[in-house]
Amino acid sequence: MQVALVGAGQTKYGTSATGLKGMFAEAARAALASVDKGMQARQVQEAWIGSVSFGGAQLGNLAGLLVEHAGMQGIPARRVENACASGGFAFRDAVQAVKSGSCDVALAAGIERMNDQHEERQRYWLGVSGDTEWERTAGLTFSGVYALMAARHMKDFGTTKEHLAHVAVKNHANGALNPKAQFQKPVSLEDAMNAPSVAAPLGLYDCCSTTDGAAAALVVRGDLAQHFTDTPIWVQGSGASTDLLAIHDRPNLTELRASRAAGQHALREAGCAVRDLGVAEVHDCFTIAELLALEDLGFCAKGQGGPFTASGATKRDGQVAVNTSGGLKAKGHPLGATGIGQVCELFLQLRGQAGPRQRAGAERGLAHNVGGSGATCAVHVLGV
Amino acid sequence: MQVALVGAGQTKYGTSATGLKGMFAEAARAALASVDKGMQARQVQEAWIGSVSFGGAQLGNLAGLLVEHAGMQGIPARRVENACASGGFAFRDAVQAVKSGSCDVALAAGIERMNDQHEERQRYWLGVSGDTEWERTAGLTFSGVYALMAARHMKDFGTTKEHLAHVAVKNHANGALNPKAQFQKPVSLEDAMNAPSVAAPLGLYDCCSTTDGAAAALVVRGDLAQHFTDTPIWVQGSGASTDLLAIHDRPNLTELRASRAAGQHALREAGCAVRDLGVAEVHDCFTIAELLALEDLGFCAKGQGGPFTASGATKRDGQVAVNTSGGLKAKGHPLGATGIGQVCELFLQLRGQAGPRQRAGAERGLAHNVGGSGATCAVHVLGV
Repeated sequence: MQVALVGAGQTKYGTSATGLKGMFAEAARAALASVDKGMQARQVQEAWIGSVSFGGAQLGNLAGLLVEHAGMQGIPARRVENACASGGFAFRDAVQAVKSGSCDVALAAGIERMNDQHEERQRYWLGVSGDTEWERTAGLTFSGVYALMAARHMKDFGTTKEHLAHVAVKNHANGALNPKAQFQKPVSLEDAMNAPSVAAPLGLYDCCSTTDGAAAALVVRGDLAQHFTDTPIWVQGSGASTDLLAIHDRPNLTELRASRAAGQHALREAGCAVRDLGVAEVHDCFTIAELLALEDLGFCAKGQGGPFTASGATKRDGQVAVNTSGGLKAKGHPLGATGIGQVCELFLQLRGQAGPRQRAGAERGLAHNVGGSGATCAVHVLGV
Repeated sequence: MQVALVGAGQTKYGTSATGLKGMFAEAARAALASVDKGMQARQVQEAWIGSVSFGGAQLGNLAGLLVEHAGMQGIPARRVENACASGGFAFRDAVQAVKSGSCDVALAAGIERMNDQHEERQRYWLGVSGDTEWERTAGLTFSGVYALMAARHMKDFGTTKEHLAHVAVKNHANGALNPKAQFQKPVSLEDAMNAPSVAAPLGLYDCCSTTDGAAAALVVRGDLAQHFTDTPIWVQGSGASTDLLAIHDRPNLTELRASRAAGQHALREAGCAVRDLGVAEVHDCFTIAELLALEDLGFCAKGQGGPFTASGATKRDGQVAVNTSGGLKAKGHPLGATGIGQVCELFLQLRGQAGPRQRAGAERGLAHNVGGSGATCAVHVLGV
């Protein structure tokens, strides 16, 4: 059974004045409105909603409440949590359900309100997506984890702060062209390199932000796609994996094995190689994470992510356009929504609807969504 | 594609001295050990883990950590959250994935550590599975919600405290025969009726407990079942639904529409009626909830759950044996594990391995798992 993506939409990322219900309804409405031949909320039969439930007060039993307020009252719905990869796994589960024949039309969505903490200690919960026994309780934050990875990458492969800065500059340049992005302004290489330190060697522009956002995607049985659009996007491959949660347990700090395994699986299922990809949304929660992703997914050799990026290979007109949306860095990173937001960007790119940030002739793309410091990853390959 | 249940196992429910990782590994090992012809942890290809993440310190990114410690390192895994129906939805998603052809052998599991709160206010989080805006912040707890339902049921249908007590007496009698149950002691009708009040009209024996527990089930492609056992249990039907979260939005307090819809769907898919069921594990978080379940699933007419129970129809030798495990009431209710624990009981009953609490000749059974005050529900029909 083939599965087609026929609609995708999202809120603007940033600081939202709307509650969880309003944000979710806005994303769902945008996804429904994007279906060329029309789709009504009541046609959606089941929903998977990625969320870490980081804010917004309704932290449990959220799924039913959200579909109720999106006009889909009564359909089976559940929350999928896999740290920052919650959205990617929600998409995977929705695709599997359609493939199984259990439903014809499924909603894969994601939502996070990170700026709306209803109690003082709630921000503390972000840390629980890292290892509690060995990392969080010892004070190791995600900035710290990725700083360790960056430092090791620098030592082993000669990666420089300038290499990292090139990621930020590129993604901010893309974000400046995305009306849904949290930060729509370019950043210069000098500014990126001279920004205040967050966790050395990572500075302010090496780190993604705290973001509110919701995103929604509609997947249907392949043989029904024509009822909804003449230009469906096909889910060609889905791969997912996990890795050891505590980073000291892993063989090295410069590779996310879950990314590698998930990427290989998704590409194999799609029957293609990375050279066939015109666009890729990769999980750049920190600039070093984009370099690791480029290497682990096979866009360049291990250790070469920095020079590869500095060469311009990942710009919109490069070998592969990476994070045309602005990425987590500039578009923003509303945890559970991020993986679905990546799908939204691919939906636009592969249909030639991405406006000034369009990658010319993009026919196949990849979405790469990582949880925590790499303990979990989902990768999807989409194509025309 | 048919899906077969070939293994199921769990920890003892109660207060556990083991952490999340140890509890999960114990349940997974028990499930693997129950596979007649043997199954190794490395044969499991993907996992769905139901958990509200109510305790145990590792509240986010839990899924990868748990499969790592169960010898299944690297497989795709995610947490499924739907309040107290998290386990039922994890089972549904695992079944759909096997049906889709994405994997041949899947683990559906659930876990909760409710007695291990790592910060003082964590118990407060249980309340977030009810509606936050209208109920939780106004002080309405789950005991209070179900007390309102019980009071209305009494007013509309003449249900009595004695009717409720019959549920507790039956389930404690069953729990006394279940070595995995939290409470393995019978309770007399007098004790149940004269227990201290929790939220009138509900007394101590009308309410389930705070429980640590983990449970695991192994589902495989039907055509592979013979490699694992000569007596597979078949997943004949799966139904799920949601309802309005805030109870004041619902048309009445004496029906859980999500239960009704999920039950009808599951029975239709299984091609059978409730009269064909020998056993049923229903979601008796409060005694009134078992009466609602009996009515909403169609075992008796609306309003007749009390007299139906008092008649002995739901005892082990009655029309249908309900909650032979002891139910949430006596076996215990470790939130995310509960829906999988129900599957574990059906696995034993349908294979004739339930020992002194065996329902004679049970060939078909139903598991009914409700989230919160009824905003979500998953029902499965299993059979030989």
